[in-house]
Amino acid sequence: MDRSTFEDRRRRLAAAAEREGVDGVVVLPGANLSYLTGLRMAASERPTMAVVSGDGGLAMIAPLLEAEKVRRETGIEKVHDYADEDGPLGAVRSALRQVFPAVSTGRALRLGVEYLNMRLFEYRLLDEAVPELVPSDAGPLTAELRGRKDPAEVALIEKAVAVVERATRAARAVVRPGATELDVARAMETAIREDELATGGGSVASGERSAMPHARTSTRTIRDGEVVWADIVVVREGYVADITRTFVAGPLGPELNRVYDVVLEAQRRAREGARPGMTGAELDAMARDYITGQGFGEYFTHRTGHGLGLEVHEEPYIIRTNERPLEPGQVFTIEPGVYLPGKGGVRVEDDVILTEEGARSLTSYPRDLRLGRPS
Amino acid sequence: MDRSTFEDRRRRLAAAAEREGVDGVVVLPGANLSYLTGLRMAASERPTMAVVSGDGGLAMIAPLLEAEKVRRETGIEKVHDYADEDGPLGAVRSALRQVFPAVSTGRALRLGVEYLNMRLFEYRLLDEAVPELVPSDAGPLTAELRGRKDPAEVALIEKAVAVVERATRAARAVVRPGATELDVARAMETAIREDELATGGGSVASGERSAMPHARTSTRTIRDGEVVWADIVVVREGYVADITRTFVAGPLGPELNRVYDVVLEAQRRAREGARPGMTGAELDAMARDYITGQGFGEYFTHRTGHGLGLEVHEEPYIIRTNERPLEPGQVFTIEPGVYLPGKGGVRVEDDVILTEEGARSLTSYPRDLRLGRPS
Repeated sequence: MDRSTFEDRRRRLAAAAEREGVDGVVVLPGANLSYLTGLRMAASERPTMAVVSGDGGLAMIAPLLEAEKVRRETGIEKVHDYADEDGPLGAVRSALRQVFPAVSTGRALRLGVEYLNMRLFEYRLLDEAVPELVPSDAGPLTAELRGRKDPAEVALIEKAVAVVERATRAARAVVRPGATELDVARAMETAIREDELATGGGSVASGERSAMPHARTSTRTIRDGEVVWADIVVVREGYVADITRTFVAGPLGPELNRVYDVVLEAQRRAREGARPGMTGAELDAMARDYITGQGFGEYFTHRTGHGLGLEVHEEPYIIRTNERPLEPGQVFTIEPGVYLPGKGGVRVEDDVILTEEGARSLTSYPRDLRLGRPS
Repeated sequence: MDRSTFEDRRRRLAAAAEREGVDGVVVLPGANLSYLTGLRMAASERPTMAVVSGDGGLAMIAPLLEAEKVRRETGIEKVHDYADEDGPLGAVRSALRQVFPAVSTGRALRLGVEYLNMRLFEYRLLDEAVPELVPSDAGPLTAELRGRKDPAEVALIEKAVAVVERATRAARAVVRPGATELDVARAMETAIREDELATGGGSVASGERSAMPHARTSTRTIRDGEVVWADIVVVREGYVADITRTFVAGPLGPELNRVYDVVLEAQRRAREGARPGMTGAELDAMARDYITGQGFGEYFTHRTGHGLGLEVHEEPYIIRTNERPLEPGQVFTIEPGVYLPGKGGVRVEDDVILTEEGARSLTSYPRDLRLGRPS
């Protein structure tokens, strides 16, 4: 993306901030910093911050040893840098003076900060630099901005999807009785690495371990008649794809077969039923009510989905408590699952983009991967 | 490590908390949670917390879909879990009541929290759950605990070191004029993956890009006479090794050759001069004063080193502002560097453990990797 894209996003954030009555927004390494400046960094014990003021100004704070990289990657010439031995406080003060010339007069400064990303460490630094800091959560502002993906973002997610589906195919080729979960995970990872720009990995869980929705890969050996799910995440040029498929090692018994049917149908209902204007709660109910009606409600222990883009979990969440309407351009997962303790779990996850007409699935790998008839 | 190790660590933390006059300590996913419970998790939008009380009690809070994993990995039976749709507040309240029965009486609760790890999101949740919360930074308490590595930890770091040195060898084999930085990085990564328990990677920077101390790998082609540094991090069973070596693509010109000499000598001085009782500042000066005396002080733009263990950067920091004495059992890096803008940078980094007699280097890969005579 070119620099005008980032400038435009900052202008839109500034306008939203002004509407909300905040003087500016501070973003830290993570998705919002990438979205607003193009800079991809990890949080560390050396704070890096971007301050966007309500009039569209921008000030960058970075440790000295990152400053040149920040300039190169963002094209922003003026970086308020600091040496390890000096610490960041002076740089934070000079950055704030750049965009808020009145900050030292003692007037209250209303700053949006990322509640889900800012650590107490960084907050205390801001609090020390600003005579009267009035914080609020910038999460809703940035979520609104990032929720509707622009075409360049969708194209990037689709490239990540191509890799995640290649990894799914590679995983499927390895699943059989006698293989281990780790064998399957390594096949996935090798497939991901074939794309030089992609990183990623995932979790594989088989047999009774698959009943833990967030199990990590183990060295467990897969046995005949078991379900094996693989939940795979790929990050490519900053954008994420996320898929889950449930493979089988030989025909399933009737109980797991029934669970598989129920999950597939719940997933299809939500995927085909999604519409703009429906709330996250309503879409969650499309999958959940069906599963509950089939008698498995207590075994569907998580939400139906989550937004994705620069983060693997971001808004909108497809969950009973999300009363905000879904909008065209949003990208999110639909991934109901049913987990029978001691027996196994089935989850089927797609990434979809919402259009005026409904959800278009970006992931198209076959969803029903069962073999033969129930044994 | 067995469960008694974690129980012992929690008892020591509880004793330290009591000494400091705090009622308990809250730790979140990350190094401290691993250290105290064995649980390896990443922070997410679903909070997970462990609360250690001053009398050694422990309460765990986890999202429902992680609860079984938490029980399995920690052996802790009582987990205060919460469903996505309910949110975490009730679970936080019941966990606090478990270890602080008086919490609901409105008495002030003094809690140590991780300033470097806790987000405003989690802090506000605690603040809502506790009628009168008095926070303080738990960082110094946990740093003291984690600083001195026990023999089992040192053994794990040494296993990570073996992998990081294998990756160094693999990188060196690829460096030559015409290869790209990415070629070198991929050779490192492939070597790391040969160990099933290891993950990791690193950065490779060549030519004028090597003058950025934190440059990331690019597709730049290496040319004759250039320096190429590789900074490699390996995580194995939770423990980290971190190495930097500077390779060359053909003999260096006199200026870079001189820089290479100066960095090697500064690194040797600090490595051989380190002693318990010396402060982090004093050890930093052993490398820095030499570099400054040779006229390159302004080009050594970062601290001399950082602790490592469960984190790639942790205390003790080898930096001018660290006035605390170093202690036997601490593991840290020694990594001076000199970076000439537009020309290139040289850094040499070892991982050392401090003993009563001095520093023992855990990394032993050759440090002077120059070819032939200066051209």
